[in-house]
Amino acid sequence: MSDLASFVPPPSSQAPRAFGLRMSMPASIAHNYTPLTPVAFLLRAALVCPNALAVIHAERAVQYTYAQWAARCLSLTFALLKTPGFTPGARVAVISPNNPMILEAHNAILAAGGIINPLNIRNSPAEIAYVLGHSGATIILCDSEYANLLPKNLSKDIVVVISNDSGGRDPKDPYEAYLAGGRREWEAQERSSKKGLLGWELITHIEDENAPAALCYTSGTTGKPKGVITTHRGSFLGAVSNAFEAGLGPTSVYAALLPYFHACGWTFPWAVTAAFATAYTMRKVDNDAIWDALLNAGVTHYAGAPTVQIGIVNHPKAKKLPRVVRVAVAASAPTAQLLGMMESLNLVPVHVYGLTETYGPVTRRYTEPTWAAMSTEERARLMARQGHGYLTSDEARVCRVPPEGADPQATPLEDVARDGKEMGEIMLRGNMVMKEYYNDKEATRKTFRDGWFCTGDLAVRMPGGELNILDRGKDVIISGGENISSLMVESEMATHPAVLECCVVGRKHEKWAEVGHAFVVLKQGQSADMETLKAHCRERMSKFAVPMYFDFVKELPKTSTGKVQKNVLRARVADAPQAKL
Amino acid sequence: MSDLASFVPPPSSQAPRAFGLRMSMPASIAHNYTPLTPVAFLLRAALVCPNALAVIHAERAVQYTYAQWAARCLSLTFALLKTPGFTPGARVAVISPNNPMILEAHNAILAAGGIINPLNIRNSPAEIAYVLGHSGATIILCDSEYANLLPKNLSKDIVVVISNDSGGRDPKDPYEAYLAGGRREWEAQERSSKKGLLGWELITHIEDENAPAALCYTSGTTGKPKGVITTHRGSFLGAVSNAFEAGLGPTSVYAALLPYFHACGWTFPWAVTAAFATAYTMRKVDNDAIWDALLNAGVTHYAGAPTVQIGIVNHPKAKKLPRVVRVAVAASAPTAQLLGMMESLNLVPVHVYGLTETYGPVTRRYTEPTWAAMSTEERARLMARQGHGYLTSDEARVCRVPPEGADPQATPLEDVARDGKEMGEIMLRGNMVMKEYYNDKEATRKTFRDGWFCTGDLAVRMPGGELNILDRGKDVIISGGENISSLMVESEMATHPAVLECCVVGRKHEKWAEVGHAFVVLKQGQSADMETLKAHCRERMSKFAVPMYFDFVKELPKTSTGKVQKNVLRARVADAPQAKL
Repeated sequence: MSDLASFVPPPSSQAPRAFGLRMSMPASIAHNYTPLTPVAFLLRAALVCPNALAVIHAERAVQYTYAQWAARCLSLTFALLKTPGFTPGARVAVISPNNPMILEAHNAILAAGGIINPLNIRNSPAEIAYVLGHSGATIILCDSEYANLLPKNLSKDIVVVISNDSGGRDPKDPYEAYLAGGRREWEAQERSSKKGLLGWELITHIEDENAPAALCYTSGTTGKPKGVITTHRGSFLGAVSNAFEAGLGPTSVYAALLPYFHACGWTFPWAVTAAFATAYTMRKVDNDAIWDALLNAGVTHYAGAPTVQIGIVNHPKAKKLPRVVRVAVAASAPTAQLLGMMESLNLVPVHVYGLTETYGPVTRRYTEPTWAAMSTEERARLMARQGHGYLTSDEARVCRVPPEGADPQATPLEDVARDGKEMGEIMLRGNMVMKEYYNDKEATRKTFRDGWFCTGDLAVRMPGGELNILDRGKDVIISGGENISSLMVESEMATHPAVLECCVVGRKHEKWAEVGHAFVVLKQGQSADMETLKAHCRERMSKFAVPMYFDFVKELPKTSTGKVQKNVLRARVADAPQAKL
Repeated sequence: MSDLASFVPPPSSQAPRAFGLRMSMPASIAHNYTPLTPVAFLLRAALVCPNALAVIHAERAVQYTYAQWAARCLSLTFALLKTPGFTPGARVAVISPNNPMILEAHNAILAAGGIINPLNIRNSPAEIAYVLGHSGATIILCDSEYANLLPKNLSKDIVVVISNDSGGRDPKDPYEAYLAGGRREWEAQERSSKKGLLGWELITHIEDENAPAALCYTSGTTGKPKGVITTHRGSFLGAVSNAFEAGLGPTSVYAALLPYFHACGWTFPWAVTAAFATAYTMRKVDNDAIWDALLNAGVTHYAGAPTVQIGIVNHPKAKKLPRVVRVAVAASAPTAQLLGMMESLNLVPVHVYGLTETYGPVTRRYTEPTWAAMSTEERARLMARQGHGYLTSDEARVCRVPPEGADPQATPLEDVARDGKEMGEIMLRGNMVMKEYYNDKEATRKTFRDGWFCTGDLAVRMPGGELNILDRGKDVIISGGENISSLMVESEMATHPAVLECCVVGRKHEKWAEVGHAFVVLKQGQSADMETLKAHCRERMSKFAVPMYFDFVKELPKTSTGKVQKNVLRARVADAPQAKL
């Protein structure tokens, strides 16, 4: 870390002596109205705590204080503004793992009046080419490690800026040179400003808080990815919610394992700044590096799917931390066993739920006072529910799915009973719902019913009103007319002491239409056979829900965000011979 | 407390079995837009934690869970809606100390589409009559203890609802009967709803988030009080800020010493609800009752001026609390001695600054890491600054005061140097600034310059950018052409071990135009004479700043919110014979 502490940012990333930290307000704006934009958090942090660390990028031994980082972001803003092809509303694509550049892009692109378009670096070149073509990005900020993803036949009108992620240690790094050019433009504009405007005062605050801020493509397992447009207002309110719900504060350090390209990192690039906290960026999920950060860098918060947690808690370096680390867990909730292991290390999970279309997390399973006296098993079971809407969200509803053949848009919304039994679809609306699918009116129209966003996730509402997802739409297994929640089967299976992870998908069946096929990863040194696990399941669920087939595998196929790729497993069983009773 | 725990609210305050906790959205509203209103916090709390305590009113041995309280608030909403004279935008006055009724009014009046107009119960009947006449309130909710404040010749068109603050223990309490009437209306509307709407679904969510929500009159020491109009959006954002900045959460208990009629209790009626915390209401500041609450009711937060703190820390029951209690201190910062005493009791002060025109607190003195190693004296000196804008506020500026004779509105804004020396006026704008002075275009026009609100408070900006108030406008003493900060003189004087409190005002002087006149309260059992205190001051400030006159008094005259009434002291010295050198 001594290397880190001695790092001196290049001139383009140094705060000037006299530094305007306020954007100019459009003349049309009322005195009691500031359009909400998450860029405001950066300027406030640089003003209030200029010497606090905004970003630590240990892998490259660079770090920036808020004063320096605001300067870097402003340099990038000016660099964008003077780049040919940049106009208000321009899409600026970012192809990058977690590092300072993608964080800077989250502020600078918005400040310049553009739309950030972060791409999934686990996508294939063909997918990248599709997304770039669809978004119409005119500028691409690209990490050199992922330059191979760039389409070969890219139009010459598109400006590509390559970053070696040197963080300013190498002035020849093209991204650093781009920033330096922005800094020159900024200084030239200061010199020619008749009003004597400085720094951020040269930038005009966004006028319409409902203007697009980000364009994130869903990683849709089927069909073409869809571009989710979110707004400045939603990003601001989402970030405030996440900061509040996570209890982020000036002494917090957020370890960024969760990719920032994933739904703009759930607004955490802005939430961390709003709280004057520090972002600890990591190019990849490396459990060794994560434990270094947990043990030595004061990490207090991180987020990730249970599969990510499994790797963390089972790492040889794992030991009980001297402070509570709050962990947002999404995709599914930790099993009782994982919960117990996490808690023994002082990793305290909070179960959240959301989608790219909802700025990431939009519901949270709020802890109830009665939980304190419960067993880990019981708490895990309760924690597994998706809970209730966030501070800035509307109520999360579960509505009846329109009958087969009916026009969903013409079918009035009906809430399911709050009985924990009647299944419906989770529906959301309000400030934490996307504006639209980019350039896709038909998809947008279809995904809303009576002003409510259809998540595609099937759930019940418990008597307490909280959501309880039975399955992500297509993950439900329908066997002999019975709906089987693959999630439920997986949770129960995972309570067996030999099971590390498992996944259950539907497989075609002559008699039952579908039956469950389980893929199981056993813990090292443990053993269990199919009959043992079937017996374990039979004690815990209806007979029809017990998977008929088992594959014992070394690992499960996963997305970059740690979600199990059920589509891959489904494809694997699709070609299997039709199963017989 | 057993009495409290066994309390069963009357039928009108009980949550129904099937309870809609979502307002109906106007058809015009986009799917990704929910107009911000603090009423949403109440519905969310009742949904997520129905059994958590929303309000404890120990003095009358009543308390309500969020489910019950949402029912009470909805009963009040319907009672208002069916009251003759209630129309959208109607002003509903509240004359009440801190109790459940005034808290309910903060939700119900807004939900009904009215404007809450809380009156200062320390005002004279003449002042009350003026405010009621100016606000044009058509309904008055009035606590019976303060019914004597009601004008005798009140128009018969104005509906007055008297509350005995029985909290439902007495069904004959007129306020309870009013709620019961509202409940009947609510149930009748449920029965006749063709869509089967329940509870809050019968209420339409506000359409324009910039619509007025509250009308609070400034307690102006000179001239007629002015009516400050604030909005739903500002109240929502202010409440979120206060919840975040104060670290309110589900286990927090906020002791409401600060009057709710004062700038809507700084948005705390809503902030506490946003955080699922509990409001512990107290009809008056009674140090004995405060210590009961601190020791036995789990209080974690309260707010008040330093003069209020002095009474609390010096109370015989004072002892070190087993947990940190966070105390928002406004009006001025605690002296080093007070800070030390508070910290020894585990009362941790946070210095905030604001006005009725800014929803209460709008800046905060953020703690800096270097403070940890400092002496109490040094920390108190640093803490005394007003700091920086809140999470949802724009940057707080200090601008040059237009020269004598110039038209302020035509004079461009110029920031003072950040040198801790150049004095100017604190200027604010944005989401935490009022909309306007009610029915007073001229006062509104005059109080804004180039879209920035002129606070009237004189300050410098420190090199770190934080505000440091030298004096509230008229409190500056100008002696021989030198500006003397009476606040500075008071802070220094208070470091003398015999001084409990002091106040310094300007007094006319033949030669120097003005000189300082100090009013000093000594600690019990301590003594100090004028010469001792003058010598103490001379060591700490310019000679011209040392007060020339001293009065040793038993107590200082104070407003209901604990501010010293400098105007009263100024009047006292105005008639004194002209002072000579």
